[in-house]
Amino acid sequence: MTDENASAAQISAAQISAAKVTAEVLEAFAGTPDDRLRELLTSLISHLHGFAAETGLTTREWLAGLEFLTAVGQKCDDQRQEFILLSDVLGLSSLVEATNAPAGATESTVLGPFYLPGAPHKQLGESIGRPQDGAATLIRGRVTDVDGTALAGAALDIWQCASNGLYDIQDPDQPPFNLRGIFTTGADGGYSFRTVRPVSYPVPVDGPVGTVFRLTNRHHWRAAHVHAIVSAAGYQAVTTHIFDSGNEYNGSDAVFGVRGSLIHEFRPAGPADPPDVAYVVDVDFVLTPAVG
Amino acid sequence: MTDENASAAQISAAQISAAKVTAEVLEAFAGTPDDRLRELLTSLISHLHGFAAETGLTTREWLAGLEFLTAVGQKCDDQRQEFILLSDVLGLSSLVEATNAPAGATESTVLGPFYLPGAPHKQLGESIGRPQDGAATLIRGRVTDVDGTALAGAALDIWQCASNGLYDIQDPDQPPFNLRGIFTTGADGGYSFRTVRPVSYPVPVDGPVGTVFRLTNRHHWRAAHVHAIVSAAGYQAVTTHIFDSGNEYNGSDAVFGVRGSLIHEFRPAGPADPPDVAYVVDVDFVLTPAVG
Repeated sequence: MTDENASAAQISAAQISAAKVTAEVLEAFAGTPDDRLRELLTSLISHLHGFAAETGLTTREWLAGLEFLTAVGQKCDDQRQEFILLSDVLGLSSLVEATNAPAGATESTVLGPFYLPGAPHKQLGESIGRPQDGAATLIRGRVTDVDGTALAGAALDIWQCASNGLYDIQDPDQPPFNLRGIFTTGADGGYSFRTVRPVSYPVPVDGPVGTVFRLTNRHHWRAAHVHAIVSAAGYQAVTTHIFDSGNEYNGSDAVFGVRGSLIHEFRPAGPADPPDVAYVVDVDFVLTPAVG
Repeated sequence: MTDENASAAQISAAQISAAKVTAEVLEAFAGTPDDRLRELLTSLISHLHGFAAETGLTTREWLAGLEFLTAVGQKCDDQRQEFILLSDVLGLSSLVEATNAPAGATESTVLGPFYLPGAPHKQLGESIGRPQDGAATLIRGRVTDVDGTALAGAALDIWQCASNGLYDIQDPDQPPFNLRGIFTTGADGGYSFRTVRPVSYPVPVDGPVGTVFRLTNRHHWRAAHVHAIVSAAGYQAVTTHIFDSGNEYNGSDAVFGVRGSLIHEFRPAGPADPPDVAYVVDVDFVLTPAVG
């Protein structure tokens, strides 16, 4: 047997042995009573084993990976969810949003860690922020179904950070629910609210996930955005962002949240616009009927 | 468009959207400077996204998964490594051993969490346990290369649990390094040592990984075994087990560690065997040259 053949035989023997292990494991989980859990475990085990087998994962790499995951788990507490951050940074969160997005509706993107339920209900046109929070901006548009029919009484749950890059819950100098508000569309499906122009902000890199950025030459900034959950009775809610076409990170968002269709122009206000705002953004939202 | 077509279009749109996210994420990690890390991340991201996309992982399932991983990380401490246990229970540890096994050598299997470096060196034939640890057993054989040439001076690092199912480090009633010892082969490659017949024992199910067993109708017992790391200068070390052909869990080991070639008969001692042992096991080990 030549050296080359010996090497090929070695790869093949290890591959056959690995394939046997995978088959044995899948067989052991085949008795899982819940159909959906069995489907998830079968796919998970196949992909997990596929990753290790196709890369020839070494024992040292395997252990380093488990130690990394352990550190991620141990970084989590009441204020911080490092595993969601890891999911964000590997693009899994964005993928899950995309996979579950209703077809034909405004595109979905990540919820992020800063959502709070229970934001105050506001009148159309009202501001959710304070003058010191940033450049005054009017955002307005319509919520419709896929045929363009106005959806009256649709809710827009809005939240964003101030111009210091911090959300209210990160910043003791902001009052509770600052830069948060819920708006309800009128009879024509129209809405409008005042806020500030959003800014880019960094995701936390003082934990284990910070290592991922450092080792992969990636920056850790999120493209500037306003969050929105748009919902209406009988329709599927959409969790989305309003991105700013002038932002430098739209092409390299740290958590892969940007969708081309969600980028909008923050147009400098002109003589025909309300005098109290510096920018105007026109954003329409489209919802699709609830399933079943 | 019929309902069926609409449904097909919806699946397709979500799939296209998901594929775009995966492509964007892979592109973002393409600048990872270290070649091996880039290879690992590319495969990991592809499989992670593949799992979520092909199962249509819901937001609720995604969150439940991250909460489970968080709990696994938080269960880890100086005494316990729940992530290694999870890897064991999903068969990943066994797969990694199989993938890295030297071809032609005695088959490898999992190291497990109970290995301690620094076990005492013992004379050939000596016992590593006490009478109260179980049924006295003589294990003996030869260490050779693949051609059957004796390997003199090879080391066998041996450890196992007592008949109560506990390793020394789990059991305050056992002295330190009980049922552990290092033996060195003689000029003929031969070795022998006395120990006790191993018993089955449960893996810990009081942590998050216990849920995996409960939800999948799997038992949590390891097939009885003696651990061995066999090494010799100039050869690749093998981490392996000696399994007992009489054990009921050989076909369903909780961590998928059993390989058919590692199952041996614990033969009742006869008139020709040493009078102080109840069982005799003949086990030969084969090593392959170190690479490079």
